Amino acid sequence: MTILGIDPGLSITGYGIMVKRGSQISIIDYGAVRFSSKNTLPVRIGQFYAFFNEAIPKNNISHISLETPFLGKNAQNFLKLGYLRGILYLLADQYNCTIAEFSPRQVKKAVTGSGAAPKEQVARVLTQLFKGLETPKTLDISDALAVTLCGAWQISQTQL
Amino acid sequence: MTILGIDPGLSITGYGIMVKRGSQISIIDYGAVRFSSKNTLPVRIGQFYAFFNEAIPKNNISHISLETPFLGKNAQNFLKLGYLRGILYLLADQYNCTIAEFSPRQVKKAVTGSGAAPKEQVARVLTQLFKGLETPKTLDISDALAVTLCGAWQISQTQL
Repeated sequence: MTILGIDPGLSITGYGIMVKRGSQISIIDYGAVRFSSKNTLPVRIGQFYAFFNEAIPKNNISHISLETPFLGKNAQNFLKLGYLRGILYLLADQYNCTIAEFSPRQVKKAVTGSGAAPKEQVARVLTQLFKGLETPKTLDISDALAVTLCGAWQISQTQL
Repeated sequence: MTILGIDPGLSITGYGIMVKRGSQISIIDYGAVRFSSKNTLPVRIGQFYAFFNEAIPKNNISHISLETPFLGKNAQNFLKLGYLRGILYLLADQYNCTIAEFSPRQVKKAVTGSGAAPKEQVARVLTQLFKGLETPKTLDISDALAVTLCGAWQISQTQL
């Protein structure tokens, strides 16, 4: 099982890739993709698609894991997060991946034990769980790794 | 110039295609695509992509025209409309189409003269403007034709 977890954003998108063998979960890749605000929305969405259209088959992704966004103050920004999620649903169909969503609370609770944990605590717990993992450069990456881990744990549960 | 106007929905998506030559605008196609609720979200999004991925090059679409959704009572439904719009932004990038958005008020005002016109009135005005056009079977189609026409008129204005 190879799980891709994504924290989608039109400026910066964090991602994590983990492999699960038995009860062992290991990180095989993680990072952040930046999209220049100089580019139009269609171009940035095209770049987002192109990145994952390469990453998914290259890493034999079987599961995609996403955080369910909550509606903030700006409805149009919320709608634009939907644009990127639509692309991931399309890729899930094109590469026959299972796609799962988790609320921010579920992710935080699964990783730290507290649904109200700050993002910095999530990042700290990840470096404790994965020996050798350096503190990710941005919280977009640690958020993505946390949702990847959530996806990996859910597979374990549904297999019990 | 060939304009594709879309009223996206996960159950039913209306679309219209118009050609603009000089000041003359004619309808070349319109219809509705239905997506079965028996299918998963990724499958339906895949079908939505497949339909327009065929229609856009086949009809040499140069412009895509969309209505900006407003946030209703259900934020998750609003987010899902974003999924389909994301697919259209991706297709705009893949086929190098211009994409334009209009608010529901703008569309109604442009077509009927009143931003508060009911959908039935929009449908009636369309059958008056386009001789030979039968009353569309669903309001999803007349909504799509109205936003297509808005897109066609906008091109005229920007070319003046």
